[in-house]
Amino acid sequence: MKIALDAMGGDFAPQAAVDGAVMAAQQLNGAAQIVLIGQEEAVRPLLQQHGAAAADLIFIPATQVIAMGEHPAKAYQQKQDSSIAVGYRMLHAGELDAFCSAGSTGAMLVGAMFSVKAVPGVLRPAIANFVPKLAGGQGILLDVGANAECKPEMLEQFGELGSLYAHYVLGIEAPKVGLMNLGEEEGKGTALTQAAYQLLKVNPHVQFIGNIEGRDLFNSKADVIICDGYTGNVVLKMAESIYEILNEKKMHDPFFDNFNYEAFGGSPILGINDNAIIGHGVSTPLAICNMLLQGYKMAESGISDQIKSTFKS
Amino acid sequence: MKIALDAMGGDFAPQAAVDGAVMAAQQLNGAAQIVLIGQEEAVRPLLQQHGAAAADLIFIPATQVIAMGEHPAKAYQQKQDSSIAVGYRMLHAGELDAFCSAGSTGAMLVGAMFSVKAVPGVLRPAIANFVPKLAGGQGILLDVGANAECKPEMLEQFGELGSLYAHYVLGIEAPKVGLMNLGEEEGKGTALTQAAYQLLKVNPHVQFIGNIEGRDLFNSKADVIICDGYTGNVVLKMAESIYEILNEKKMHDPFFDNFNYEAFGGSPILGINDNAIIGHGVSTPLAICNMLLQGYKMAESGISDQIKSTFKS
Repeated sequence: MKIALDAMGGDFAPQAAVDGAVMAAQQLNGAAQIVLIGQEEAVRPLLQQHGAAAADLIFIPATQVIAMGEHPAKAYQQKQDSSIAVGYRMLHAGELDAFCSAGSTGAMLVGAMFSVKAVPGVLRPAIANFVPKLAGGQGILLDVGANAECKPEMLEQFGELGSLYAHYVLGIEAPKVGLMNLGEEEGKGTALTQAAYQLLKVNPHVQFIGNIEGRDLFNSKADVIICDGYTGNVVLKMAESIYEILNEKKMHDPFFDNFNYEAFGGSPILGINDNAIIGHGVSTPLAICNMLLQGYKMAESGISDQIKSTFKS
Repeated sequence: MKIALDAMGGDFAPQAAVDGAVMAAQQLNGAAQIVLIGQEEAVRPLLQQHGAAAADLIFIPATQVIAMGEHPAKAYQQKQDSSIAVGYRMLHAGELDAFCSAGSTGAMLVGAMFSVKAVPGVLRPAIANFVPKLAGGQGILLDVGANAECKPEMLEQFGELGSLYAHYVLGIEAPKVGLMNLGEEEGKGTALTQAAYQLLKVNPHVQFIGNIEGRDLFNSKADVIICDGYTGNVVLKMAESIYEILNEKKMHDPFFDNFNYEAFGGSPILGINDNAIIGHGVSTPLAICNMLLQGYKMAESGISDQIKSTFKS
């Protein structure tokens, strides 16, 4: 099994990327190989610094880098030898089992749609993010930014995609799906949430528990929390800022420490024909390591095949 | 000056309401009179318990109560002698300077629209909520639930309403207005936020600083944060739950203590012809007291006249 990392992605790349990749290789201890994709002159010396610890890592050269400020679609198409384009090409060719990057979110989404593509039947893939639960473990929230604007049928599918992920990757037996809303009662909310409610209510593939509210993110009501990408993004960034504030104030707590993006390392793109994970721009080696371990977990679980077979029927 | 309270509103009414009203009367120390509206047999005995401390409170009987579960519009129209309907009638007649209730949010909104009504020119009044700032002081977030679905022109007006409130009530010289979005760049977001951005950019009445993100709620980028009522409600309830979790974990901090709804007591309805504030259902006496003090501050500032004269032109 091969789990790949864009060695050029993230504010602290390639140093943090290489360090995190070496860390992940040690933890995987041979269960999977780590593949590093990036500019040879930048990555090789860093690998050499790690000596024997980096011996099992595979290096794949890519001469170009997509920078954070570039137009995602344009950059992806023009820079066919960028680390992100090379990664997706290898993923699509079956040479990789998962591809992770802390680089441009936009380019990672564009690459997913252009190369491995959405699973037939999936209207729009979504980015999922982990939500720590007070009772322990985690739930997932989706979409957190791939689709600012959503249709009811997309929210319904997010419920299905999230349920599959929660079941096969997080190991939650029968994941409870909650629709983020501004009130619990059926009929509350926007035209979008009202219509999505009706679809989810009769969908046999999800265990829909109805509307949940902003206060229910961290409790045990729902394992899978669905919303449009605009709302999910606001929620995610607000949670991150809460963690940062607590951290600055040196208020530490095991629950709130899970708000740290490093704890999970990255956000999977769900609904594409393969395993891709997007990391935070400021990813540290620990975050990179956890993103790669998550990629391994996704690949091992066979989640993308589960999604394909569910949406085929 | 007369600041009125629905003595029957809130989960712990009338006890918490009466206790909070007495507390507010003591703090106002004659600057304004507190008017309690409610069922005589329930409220009078509680007032008597307070003895001399309650001597300056004015009691106005209302025989009916609108319960939390009732249909707001139906209940408001059918229960014309409810504490909320009586309060709004008196407010509209100029017998009160502000009306506060921790009762049904829906009935408070319906009452506002039916009695004192929206300011001519205001498309839809909004509910504003306070946001504590890391640098001290507070900003406001609107809408937090009056309008789940918004048009760009509504968001633009929320910017104007919020700016007036921040200036005249919070004393912020030139309030900075930020549009909640999933990215900072112009052009990001939904059709709604994209269109609202263009309106705000050229609006001479607001100091628009552009898009802000979920991570900017508590920093100093914006004093007035604009979003649709669905998103604002999710954000507000998430913030409340963070406070509750910190509180349960006994993690106390002056900044996070301001997440406590009790600190501000209630959310003003902005864009109506008078001063009305909606309190949290679980309002304690302290929350009730702070809601009344906020009502006094609003009345004293002349905010509703400022809004009227701004939207007339």
